[in-house]
Formats: sequence, structure tokens, C-alpha cells
Amino acid sequence: MAREDIVGSVAHATMLNETGLLDDGDYELIVHGLRVIHTDIEFGRFEWIEAREDVHMNIEAALRDRIGEAAGRLHTARSRNDQVALDERLWLRRKAVDVALHLLALLEQLAEQARAHADWPMCGYTHLQRAQPITVGHYLLAHAEALERDLGRVLDTVARMDVCPLGSGALAGTTLPIDRDRTAELLGFCRVSRNSLDAVSDRDHLVEMMAAAALGMSHLSRIGEELCLYASAEFGYVRISDAFTTGSSLMPQKKNPDVAELVRGKSGRVVGNLVSLLVTLKGLPLAYNKDMQEDKEPLFDTMRTWDDCLVVMTDMLGALRWQKQALLVALDRGFLLATDLADLLVAEGVPFRKAHAQVASLVAELVESGDSFETWGFDKIARRFGLQTEDVGNALNVRNALRKRDVDGAPHPIRVKREAREVHKRAEAWRRRVDVYAQPTEAEAILHGA
Amino acid sequence: MAREDIVGSVAHATMLNETGLLDDGDYELIVHGLRVIHTDIEFGRFEWIEAREDVHMNIEAALRDRIGEAAGRLHTARSRNDQVALDERLWLRRKAVDVALHLLALLEQLAEQARAHADWPMCGYTHLQRAQPITVGHYLLAHAEALERDLGRVLDTVARMDVCPLGSGALAGTTLPIDRDRTAELLGFCRVSRNSLDAVSDRDHLVEMMAAAALGMSHLSRIGEELCLYASAEFGYVRISDAFTTGSSLMPQKKNPDVAELVRGKSGRVVGNLVSLLVTLKGLPLAYNKDMQEDKEPLFDTMRTWDDCLVVMTDMLGALRWQKQALLVALDRGFLLATDLADLLVAEGVPFRKAHAQVASLVAELVESGDSFETWGFDKIARRFGLQTEDVGNALNVRNALRKRDVDGAPHPIRVKREAREVHKRAEAWRRRVDVYAQPTEAEAILHGA
Amino acid sequence: MAREDIVGSVAHATMLNETGLLDDGDYELIVHGLRVIHTDIEFGRFEWIEAREDVHMNIEAALRDRIGEAAGRLHTARSRNDQVALDERLWLRRKAVDVALHLLALLEQLAEQARAHADWPMCGYTHLQRAQPITVGHYLLAHAEALERDLGRVLDTVARMDVCPLGSGALAGTTLPIDRDRTAELLGFCRVSRNSLDAVSDRDHLVEMMAAAALGMSHLSRIGEELCLYASAEFGYVRISDAFTTGSSLMPQKKNPDVAELVRGKSGRVVGNLVSLLVTLKGLPLAYNKDMQEDKEPLFDTMRTWDDCLVVMTDMLGALRWQKQALLVALDRGFLLATDLADLLVAEGVPFRKAHAQVASLVAELVESGDSFETWGFDKIARRFGLQTEDVGNALNVRNALRKRDVDGAPHPIRVKREAREVHKRAEAWRRRVDVYAQPTEAEAILHGA
Amino acid sequence: MAREDIVGSVAHATMLNETGLLDDGDYELIVHGLRVIHTDIEFGRFEWIEAREDVHMNIEAALRDRIGEAAGRLHTARSRNDQVALDERLWLRRKAVDVALHLLALLEQLAEQARAHADWPMCGYTHLQRAQPITVGHYLLAHAEALERDLGRVLDTVARMDVCPLGSGALAGTTLPIDRDRTAELLGFCRVSRNSLDAVSDRDHLVEMMAAAALGMSHLSRIGEELCLYASAEFGYVRISDAFTTGSSLMPQKKNPDVAELVRGKSGRVVGNLVSLLVTLKGLPLAYNKDMQEDKEPLFDTMRTWDDCLVVMTDMLGALRWQKQALLVALDRGFLLATDLADLLVAEGVPFRKAHAQVASLVAELVESGDSFETWGFDKIARRFGLQTEDVGNALNVRNALRKRDVDGAPHPIRVKREAREVHKRAEAWRRRVDVYAQPTEAEAILHGA
Repeated sequence: MAREDIVGSVAHATMLNETGLLDDGDYELIVHGLRVIHTDIEFGRFEWIEAREDVHMNIEAALRDRIGEAAGRLHTARSRNDQVALDERLWLRRKAVDVALHLLALLEQLAEQARAHADWPMCGYTHLQRAQPITVGHYLLAHAEALERDLGRVLDTVARMDVCPLGSGALAGTTLPIDRDRTAELLGFCRVSRNSLDAVSDRDHLVEMMAAAALGMSHLSRIGEELCLYASAEFGYVRISDAFTTGSSLMPQKKNPDVAELVRGKSGRVVGNLVSLLVTLKGLPLAYNKDMQEDKEPLFDTMRTWDDCLVVMTDMLGALRWQKQALLVALDRGFLLATDLADLLVAEGVPFRKAHAQVASLVAELVESGDSFETWGFDKIARRFGLQTEDVGNALNVRNALRKRDVDGAPHPIRVKREAREVHKRAEAWRRRVDVYAQPTEAEAILHGA
Repeated sequence: MAREDIVGSVAHATMLNETGLLDDGDYELIVHGLRVIHTDIEFGRFEWIEAREDVHMNIEAALRDRIGEAAGRLHTARSRNDQVALDERLWLRRKAVDVALHLLALLEQLAEQARAHADWPMCGYTHLQRAQPITVGHYLLAHAEALERDLGRVLDTVARMDVCPLGSGALAGTTLPIDRDRTAELLGFCRVSRNSLDAVSDRDHLVEMMAAAALGMSHLSRIGEELCLYASAEFGYVRISDAFTTGSSLMPQKKNPDVAELVRGKSGRVVGNLVSLLVTLKGLPLAYNKDMQEDKEPLFDTMRTWDDCLVVMTDMLGALRWQKQALLVALDRGFLLATDLADLLVAEGVPFRKAHAQVASLVAELVESGDSFETWGFDKIARRFGLQTEDVGNALNVRNALRKRDVDGAPHPIRVKREAREVHKRAEAWRRRVDVYAQPTEAEAILHGA
Repeated sequence: MAREDIVGSVAHATMLNETGLLDDGDYELIVHGLRVIHTDIEFGRFEWIEAREDVHMNIEAALRDRIGEAAGRLHTARSRNDQVALDERLWLRRKAVDVALHLLALLEQLAEQARAHADWPMCGYTHLQRAQPITVGHYLLAHAEALERDLGRVLDTVARMDVCPLGSGALAGTTLPIDRDRTAELLGFCRVSRNSLDAVSDRDHLVEMMAAAALGMSHLSRIGEELCLYASAEFGYVRISDAFTTGSSLMPQKKNPDVAELVRGKSGRVVGNLVSLLVTLKGLPLAYNKDMQEDKEPLFDTMRTWDDCLVVMTDMLGALRWQKQALLVALDRGFLLATDLADLLVAEGVPFRKAHAQVASLVAELVESGDSFETWGFDKIARRFGLQTEDVGNALNVRNALRKRDVDGAPHPIRVKREAREVHKRAEAWRRRVDVYAQPTEAEAILHGA
Repeated sequence: MAREDIVGSVAHATMLNETGLLDDGDYELIVHGLRVIHTDIEFGRFEWIEAREDVHMNIEAALRDRIGEAAGRLHTARSRNDQVALDERLWLRRKAVDVALHLLALLEQLAEQARAHADWPMCGYTHLQRAQPITVGHYLLAHAEALERDLGRVLDTVARMDVCPLGSGALAGTTLPIDRDRTAELLGFCRVSRNSLDAVSDRDHLVEMMAAAALGMSHLSRIGEELCLYASAEFGYVRISDAFTTGSSLMPQKKNPDVAELVRGKSGRVVGNLVSLLVTLKGLPLAYNKDMQEDKEPLFDTMRTWDDCLVVMTDMLGALRWQKQALLVALDRGFLLATDLADLLVAEGVPFRKAHAQVASLVAELVESGDSFETWGFDKIARRFGLQTEDVGNALNVRNALRKRDVDGAPHPIRVKREAREVHKRAEAWRRRVDVYAQPTEAEAILHGA
């Protein structure tokens, strides 16, 4: 949070100067000192001293070392409590932008892959039992939906925390005539906080973001689980690129989906972090308590974990090779079109229950003998039920079956393709919303000498 | 969720009828049957049969008992999976409105009490140590801020879940030419879901609402803790009305703040419920899995707990009697104005560090002797530092001190009063946003024969 | 907890009578009254009155209704706080015995099935990738190990909570000369609590048991996951009995492993319950606080859930049909014996690395062509590497491979069979430890008129 | 875990050598190489190379760099999976010993302070309301009870994990004739694991220890909360040594109990870590999955946090100064002896209910007027109720009241003193149990050249 601490100080000093609480000389000194420290940090030259406890103290002391007495004037009308509250907000806003951009990248990856596999038939599952035919594209877009909700949550949290706490002092504001609105403006905040007591003790945005992350990682854990399943010998639906698997020096047949497993497993730590903060905050009286120092580690860990998992998932999905043949065999063996066969009988005038029972009985026989509809023969099926072989073939054709599912949200290949394009369009709109928070602020411009 | 199940069925039947998939006769039968069942349930006459498993099956069977064959037609183009997904959304929308209204009631209670106690001086605490002077009203408005964020989260969640899943079938849509937009409109949804696989397996809104509740209850747990503290013999800041405490038949001196403790304790179950659902969802492959049946109990328990706690907290705060005398004594004994005394010395030309050291030394003496500034005497202080007694009295006057804190968010009594009014105004705006979701839908109107 | 409340009262009254604090007449009245109430409850005739709040108050009031004035004497030297602490311990001891017996039943079921399938070869997995050959029995005994640890934890918890809190009063003991050791003896406790403040506020045993349950359910969740996988069309390793699956009226091919899924999903609520109590207890000052009333619901729910899942899992595993053919096909296709082939080359003098590389290259070819070692032909393999066909056949024989794994804990079929017998023997020893806590206490004997 | 990795390798090599699977030359090379690496690590000279991924790989590679080819022979009959499983057990055993010793130190500190304050009267609280008189010693021993349970849990966990997994291979044991019992003996384990699949995927001991830690930290959080309360201006019961508080450069009256707050707050991260692992393990199929790599960070963090908090709490309690005067004033003002006054009336023949009502009415008057029994006057009380002043004085004497509470676990000062001695004695017994696991193993002796 060093960068945020410095930017916050620049904004505060600028406001103090503009309101006459800090003279031009001291102001120049302070901004220059902060600039140098910032550069030192960027270039890895800054010497962090453990005894100085935390980031804020290190920067404060370094400034004093550098510009002397004037450094103290930076603390006019500011306390550690509102300074920390500010830094956390600035830091989280920046990280939220990163996460949002990586959510967008994954979203677009899904849309891209969905477009490319819009008409690749695939078993849809419920209860991990083969259920009804969908397409690979349709499957991928299901996850895209979840990601858009994640995006929404991230942006809602950022909007709700878009409040500048500076000027709240230790807990009761300040007696000096500062201009809080100006500081907020310099830092790109929408408005100032409305209650000093709340401003220094509010950690809602951390909890809210960590809850969004827990849910977001739960989405990734589900994709991770599916990749582990689909990459198993038993399913064989996908080949994960070697970059995301590890082999065994002993067993040449092995290709462990390590990355997919890790993403799945890391959902645990993000839930744990959320719980950690909720336990820490429980029952704390206002305003600041030292317990709240425990908010940073889980937050940092959560944002880094989420961000990393998004990036690696995007790359892994981009390099995934779907196995068309395996997908088709499973569809065929899964009797997913039994219902369509029954529908054909109904169309020929057989009552629904009777049709269903007849097909069920045939399926049971085939399961026993290890056959599929196709290997047993469409002509034999036609003879058994007094149907035309061609009609049976049409009914038991998965592409026909998919084209019949023609309502919003259904796996009709053309709908899937269209929806993939829509996702791309919506991604553009999301990007514009994210960009609002990614703009450099006036305080950053000052820091960079603009 | 019986009510939601019936309303959902009415909407589905209406759409089927309008698109020609259900003839008028059957439609009339179905709607009439559902109306009777709904009335039976409302009046407690409906016979729930355990063997029929769940709410949906009970209503389905009761409809068949009542109108026969036609009942089956209600299941045209609908599966259990999209039906359950719908009912949960309708139920949660309704409960969210309840919670939002009770958040508003508590918010207005806080504003009302803040207005009434805008200028009651009080110790502000950090680390549970007396720190700086605030007012009771300022303290109450800190919690109002948290409640407004809770409101925002509830409404954001409702907006994000404002999507009709009906028509998604078991997982892959339907082959029938239904009008999904019309169903959504009948049920007051903003739009239809965009992916059938996602629509039946998405439980994001449950997690999101339960996370909002965990945070909301954490806010209430903090108020609960403060009430326990403030009602203790040691603080003595408030008297909690007898309606919210219990006595002891043995010890006449006791008045246990049971309700405040329960609210604090119940934050545990709400965090537990959130964890419960996150664990259940972790690593589940798409689409529906039976594990997800475990989503209902924690959701129901969470919404009921949150709602109840909000109501009881509103009433308890409304009946709270703040103890002005105890508040003032604590302020005086807490040396909260030591800083103001040092400021006075600075104004007289004493360098800051020296002034601070001199005052610190006096405070240490008084702590030892058990005195406060006031009991020791303003004139003695004046003599010690070579000041005017009147100036000392002004500096050590808490009302003056409060009036000096005159920036946004600070405890200046006039600012507190003004902010209390602002909260009332914002509450009105919130209420209008909530009302949007509280309107009866077209489907409800049909059910009620309108 | 009604039963525990009554038994506790019988013990307390007996001690009071024996120490002369309760005369014979009142004692007879009280015991008789409690007996009648107990019978009424057992036969469902007891009228629970909501307004009387809880179980304790209902029984107390019913006793007063029945025997008048004398009922009050039961409260000599007892408070609500130590009474509740006692009842929870008695209740949890009883439920722990139930859970322990059901853990034993599942353990024995696993041992029984392991014995029956000791030599059924099966793929062992890591990363859900086929890795090395094991047997079904060996797989089942892995879970048996976890269950024995669960048993150990349950019994350790019961031993640690084997302390009678009665006589601790509200928080500071009593001024009356009661005989605490006698009460403890009557209730079958090992010793009395050593600190009254701790005795009324200690809920450790609840947390400890709920943590044991969370871990125990995590074990069941893993079995549940495996059953879902193994019952899928893709694995096909097991058929779950119809009693534990549900079909689909629409899709005749479906057989959903609902029960296995529910067990997996229910691990969530048990983790949630644990978190719930930990949050509630966090930061509570001594001694009793009302928050602790929130301890019962999660405890009850946890013990019921764990117990039910153990019973259903035992029955489901007992009725499971393992599919020998599918198990063998997977073994063969998985190249699990590639290492054994390399070992054969090494035995013929080929350096290890070279042998490994040669076999790896063959495996890669076969994966590409869709062959297994067997379908490609042992003779071709022999020719390729200059080996004898018979030796190749022996090396690539899974039974041979299993027999070579002949150390403690390895899947050699004879070892697996022997270990299954050992589990049965250890189960007997466990049962004797559980029985200690299942014996009727002296107080129960008095209640039942013995 | 470097140290554990090396010791484990020494044991494995020794066993291989003894069973003839590793010749003397290679054995000497390996042990010597490991010794050097161990020394390098101890002295901070070892160069950790990030690219080598983890501790195991670094040591493995360093050994190869140092002794060449022979290093590879260390991996005979061992895989990464059983190696990691072993290292975690050795590491946790060592850390558990640390924690146990620090639990003992805190236990003895509590006993020591309890002895010193055995007869210092103090208000006992329920619901944070003054309830009945206890002593400071009695209060401290309540926490000692909780710590002994913590110790029991730590040692039970250590006993349950006292199983050597080495020889379980990747998941299915090994084909080589190793001597697993010997390896176990070299490493000080009680027995070998009984199932290879379980041995490599079992993380029960981690969960169990982390659950014990969550409960243990919940105990510390309660002490932390009490210290924050007792150190507040409102209670004033204790002064925390400056070493454990921080002041404010601005407000000379402040002394923030930072350490007590941090201990309380850190209970959150430990609960979070437990949840993290439970989520990660949920639903994982056997045997090893990469997800399980996520077990280390939460474990490390938990053991370090618990250990640190125990140490700091021990020191802080040792340096605590209890404020006798404040404790006595609170007792007097709390009317804690109202019951004793009523008892006196009963002894004079007043019916209980009447006596209670009369005293309650007096207490109400005194609360209103701001008096205590003592300030109002024992003689006035005597006159009001027709009692002897001396008898009233005796009844309202807190020391008499404490001496009347003379049953096991009650706060009678002599009992408290005796119990403090008992705790010291039991601590000795605990220490002997801990020592068993603290002994150097044969493998360590070999490493250190003994």
C-alpha cells in the first residue's frame, strides 16, 4: 500500500496548501520528498526498516529523514486512523480494477471459445448423470453468466466504497478548516464520508469484496472440478495443455491437471479469509480497535489469489483442446435422445405413457447388452416400433435435437453463437464501467509531476 | 415458499394459455384450483402430507386431487429444476423487501434518536479507551451509515437476481415455443435468464444475500456489544427498557440485557449459514446436483434471523433512555479535553511539544490523585500555566470543544442535527427504491381474481 | 433434552435427600412427580406450553402443577446455569454414543465389503488420474482408517467432558453443604468440575464435538463424491441400489445418486454449524452470557445430520454392486502396469532410464492408436523389446502386480483380507469403550423405579 | 519443514541400509551430505532456489549437487507423496510440543497469579452485570481449566497422528522389501500406517489441530476481551504494563491495550484457517490431489499465531497489576450481597419471599439515591429491619460471604489457594506427557553424528 499512502499524502498536502494551512515552501518540499520516495520504491531502492513497523511509518520517517521538520506538517488535520482507512480504499479500488479486467479477459475467452464450439454437441449433466444434449459453447456460456455477476458485484462494491474518509481524524473529525471535498476530488472519490466515527471503523468494503471473491472463487472451483473430470481417462472430453499439467517420472500414462486442482483448492483459502474477517469484526465496539489491523493479510491474500486464478484459468481455457470424438461417443452411449424417440412415437399416435414405457424398456435392454441406439441399429428400432428408419434416424440425430431447443437460453447452435457475440458486446460495456476507476487521479498527476 | 410456487404456476399457465399451448378450459381449471389451494393455505386449512416430500409436490398433488388430469398440463415446458429456481427467487425477493423495510425502520429510528440527542456530549472511544468528545447523536449516526450500506447491498442483490429462469427446463431449455418474456413480465421480472444451464444451477443470489446478512448482522452485533457495555454498572450510559431485559428472582440488582446479547450472539448463526452454503457449492459440476437442496434451510434461517433482529433492535433503541449525567461524568473524568488545554497554551505562544508535555504531566498527577480538571479547579490550572481562569474554563468546556469540530462528518451538534434530517430524506429515497419490488405482480393479480 | 433434565433432577434430589437438605416426604413427591412427567413425555402425552419458554421451564412448571410447593425445593442449591450446563453434557454424551455406534456399524460394513472384495483389482487414482493398481477392498479400508480416527475423536471428547457441573450455582457455587461427588456418581460422571465460573460458561465440548463432526462429515463427503463418480456412466464402477437413487419420469437412462449427493452436500451445514458456534463464543467475557443460548440449534442439527448420514451410508455401501468388468477394463486401458514392464526390462539388464523411456514411448503410441497393452498384444511387446511373451504376460498381469506389493498397508489381496479381519477385531475393542458410556446410571435406575 | 525433511531422509536411508537396499558407501555419502545441508540451513548458509519449487526439491537437488548419483538412491521405495505426509507429521509434532509447553507456561502463570490473588474479592459477572462475589484467583483459575482442556486436545491429536506413513509410496505401497517398522522406530513413531491410500491423503491431524487451535484462540479471545474491559477507565480493575500498551502522542490520558486486542482479533484468522482447510478437503476423491498443497499455509499460520499469542499472554498476565481498591468499590456498589442480607432476615424467621421483597425494595431506593449498603450505613439497615448492626455488618462483609461458599469449585479463598497448588501439580504431570514427544529420535541422533 506504499503507493496509495504516498498518493493520499500528496492529495492531503495539496488541499492543505490550497486552503492556506500549509505554505508553498513546505508544500513543495513535501511533494518533492514524496516523489523521490515514490521513485525509490518503484525502483526497489527504498530501504524498508522493520523497526518502523508498517508502511505508513516507514514512509513518514523517510520523509522526515529527507526534508526534516516540514514532514511533520503533513500530519496537520490528519490522524493515523483516517490515513489507514484512506489507503485501504485506494488499494482496494486499484486491485478491484485488476480483478475486474481479468474477469473481463476470462469472460471474453469463454465467449471466444463458445463461438468456436457453438455447435459441438456435448452431454449435459445433472447429478453427474448424462441428461440432455447441449453444446460445448452452451456449457461455456453458462460460466460466462456467473462471471458477469461477479463483475457486477465487484463494481457495486467499488461504487459503494467510493467515499473519501480523510478529514475524519482519529474518530471525531478535526478542528481545522480543511476542505474535505477538495481532497476527495484530488483522489477521484465521488463524495466524502458523512460520519467520522463510521469512517475510521468501517471495513464493510473489505468484507463485501471478500464475499464477492469467495463466490467468484466458488465459480472457478466448479470449472476446476469440471476440468479435472473432463480431463480424466473416464471422460476424456478435453486435453489440458502441458503448460497446465504435470507428468510423472514413473508413470508415463499420467498427466495431472495440477492447475485446475489448485484453483479448485484455493477456493478454500478465500472462504477462510472471509470468515477470518467476519470473526474479527464481530462484536467490536466503535470506533477503531487494534483487532482491525488483522484486516489486511486476508484481504491481500484474497485479491491476489482471485486475480491469479482468473489469469491462469483464462490461459488454460484458451489452450484447451476439446475432443470431439469423445464428446460424441458419450452422447450416443448416454441415450440422451431417448425422449426424442418417445416423442416420435407420440407423434405417430401412441399415448405418451405407453411410448415412454416402450422406449424405457428398450433402453434397459441396450444398457444390459452394452449397445447404444446407433450400434444396435436404427432399422431394428424402426421395425420394433413400426416406424420408418429415416424418421428414427432423424429423431436420434443430436444436431436435430439441438435445433429443436429454440428458446432464449437454450443450446440451439445458432442461439449459442449469437449469445457469444452478445457477451463480447456486453464485455465492452463492462470495460467502460471499469475504466472509470482506472483513470489516473489529479493527485497521481501531481505526484508524477504533471 | 408455497405462495411463490402458486404464483409461479399461475404465471406459467397464463403464458401457456396466451401462446396456445394450454386451452382455455384447462387454464380456467388450473387457475381456479390454484386459487382454492392458495386460500386453503392462507387460512391454515391446507393439509400438508409429509410423504409428498416438499412444498412443490404437495401443491402439485393437491391440484391433481382437485382438478384431475388437467393438472398435468401445468407441467408442459416446465421442469422441477426451473420451477425451484423460480420459487427461490420470488421468495427471496419478497423477504428482501421485508428486510429492506426493517432496515429503513431502524435507520429512521437512529435518525430520530440522533436528532433528539444531537447535542448530548459523550465520550468517543478507540480501543475502548476514552478518546475524544462526540455526541450521542453523532454516535448513533455512525450506525446509520452502516445500515445504509446494508440497504444498498440488499437492493443490489435484488437487482442482480431480477431474472426469470422459467423456460430453462431441466437444464437445456425446452422444445416447445413458449414465450419466456411474457412469463417474466407476469412475475415482475426485468428480463429472462440467458443460459439454461446456468439458470437452474445458479445460487449466487442466495450467497450474495447471505453475505450481506452476515455483514448486516455484524453491524447489529457491534450495537449489541455497545448496549451491553453501556448498560453495565461500570458505564451506566443507558437504561434498557424492561421489555428487553430480564431480572433475577435472587439478585434484585440485576437487569440482564438479554436481547442485546442475543442479537450479538445470533451474528454467529448467520456467518455459519453463509459458510454452510459456500461449502456445499464448492466444486459442484454443472448443472443441478442434489447437494443444492441444502440451500434452503440456511437461507430461511438467515432471512428470518436478520429480520427479527432488525425489528427488535429498532424497538429497543426507541425505548432506550440515555443517562446524561453518567455521560458527562465520564467525559470529565476522561480528560478528553487535554488536547484543547494544550491548544490554548499554544495559542499563548508556548511551543507545541512543550505545551503537550506540560499538560501530560498535569493529567498524570490528576489521575494519581483521582481528580478531574473540574474537581481540581480551573483557577488552579490557570495559575499553574499562567492563563486566565475564564480561558481555561472555555477550553475545558465540552460544548465549546464540540462546536470547534466543524467539518463534514464531525460531531458539531448543529451538523449532527442537520445530518439526522438528511438521513430521513435519504430514507425516503431508499423507500421508493424498495417499493419497486413490493408492488403486486400481474400474476398475483390474476391469482387474486383481479 | 427433556429426558436429561429429568434425570438430572432425580440425581440432584437424591443427593439433597441423602445429605439431609430435602426430607423424605418431599423427595418421594418429587421423584414420583418426575416419573409421571417422564412417562407422559415418553408416551407423547405431555403438554408443552410455548409460553413456558423452554424444556426446563415446562418440566419445572408441570412438576409444580402436580406436586405443589415441594417442587420448589428441587431448586435448593441449584441454578438455571448449572442445570443447563448439566443437561447439555448428558444429552451430548447420549448422542455421542449413538454416533459412535453408527460409526462402528459403518466401519464394520466397510470391513465386510473389503473382505468380500479384497482381491477385486481396481485403478488407484491420484489427481483423478489412473495411477497404480489397488483392490476394491484396499480402497474401502482407506475409508475405514478415517472412521477409526473419527471414533477416537468422539470418545476423546466424551472423556474430556466427563465432568459434572452441578453445584456450580449461577457462577459462584453455593453456600449449602451439598455433596457434589455423590451427584456426579449418580449421573455416571467421572469427577466434578473444579471451577464454578468455568463450569457454567464452558462450551468446549460442543465445539470439540462439532469439529469432530465437521471432519467426520468431510470424510463422508469424500465417499459421497467417489460414489457419484463411480456411479457415473463414464466410470461405471458401481451400481447404487435403487433405494438410494431416483430416476426421471422423462429420461429412462437416468439414475441419480441423490443420497450420495446429499451426504456430500450436508458436509456444508456441519462446517457452518461449527463456524456459527465459534463466532458466537468469540470474545465473550465470563461467565454466562445470553449469547450462549445460541449453542443448541447448531449442536442438535450437527449430531442429527452426522448420525443420519452414517446410517444411510452404511446401508448404501452394503447394497452397492461393484462392477468387476468395468473395473478391469479401466485398469487395462489405464496403462497402470507400465512401470512393471519397465521393471522387467531393468531385470533384463536395461538401464532404468532407458527402460523407462522405451516404455513411455510405447505407451504414447498406444494412447494415440486407442490400444491397451492387451489389445495390442503381449507377443508384439515381447518382440519389440526382445523379451519372452510369457514374461511380458506375467509382468502385465494385474494380479501379479498386486501380489508384488507386499508391505504393511499395501494392496496385496491377502494383506487386505487380513486387515479386514483386524478391523473387525478392533471394532470389538471400540465397542467396549463405547459401552462404558451407554450404561444406565444410578439416577436413571431411580427414575425407572429400580 | 526443511529439518523434518532431512531427518526423514536420514531415517529412510538408515532403514534401506539395514535391510540391504542401500550399500554402506552410498549410505555414508547420503548421511554425510544431509548433515552438511542441515548445518548450512541451521547457519543460514543454504541457498534456497525459487525455481526448485519447494523445500523437498531444494534439499533433493542440493544433495545431488553435493554427492551426485548416490542421491538418487535415497528415493528407492519412497515417493513424494509419502515423503510430504511424513514431513508434515514430524513438523506438526514439533510445533505441537512448542504450543503445549507454552500452554503449560500460561497455565502456571495463571496458577501463580491465582495463588497471589486467591483472596482478592472481585465482582463475578453474568451478562456483564455484576452478579455474585468471587475472587481474582477464582476468576483466573476459570481460564486455567480451559487451558488444561486445550492441552488435552493437543496431546490427543499428537497421539492420534503418531503413525508413520513412510512406505506408502505414491498411493499403493512399494514392491521392495522395506522394513517399515524400523523407519517408524527411527523417527519415534508409535506404529506404521495401515493403509497406503489413506496414509498419503489423510490430513485429519491438521484439521484436528487447527480446530483445537480455533477453540484455544477462542479462550484467549475471551481473556483479551476481559482485559480490554478491565483496563478501561470504566472498570479500572487492572493496569496493563506499558510493554503491552501503546499511548497517544496527542492524548496523554490514553493507554491502548493493543496486545489484548490483537490476541482477541487474531482468533479470527485461526477460525478462518480451519474453514479454509475444511473447504479445500470437502469432496476430494482419494488419494492425493493437488488441492491438498493448500494445507500448509493455514497450518503454519495457525501454529505460529497460537504459539505467539500464548507467549505474549503469559507475559502480559505476569505483569498485570490488579487494582484492589477498584475491585472493592465495584463489589460494594454492585449490591452483590443483597442475597446474604435476605438470608439473614430468613434466619430471623422472616418468610423467604417477604425477606427478598424487603431487600429488593431497599436496593431500589439505594440505586436511586446513589448509595451503597455501606455508605447508607449498616446501623440504618439494622434499624429498618429490626436486626443487630453487627449481624448486618457480618452479612454484608464480602470476606464472610466468600467463606460461606465452601464446596468444590467455589470461590472460598482457601479453596482457591489449594486449587492453585493443584494446578501446579497437574502441570507437572502434563509436562511429563509432553516430554515424551520432545525427546530426540534415533534418526536425529544419527544426523547429529551421535
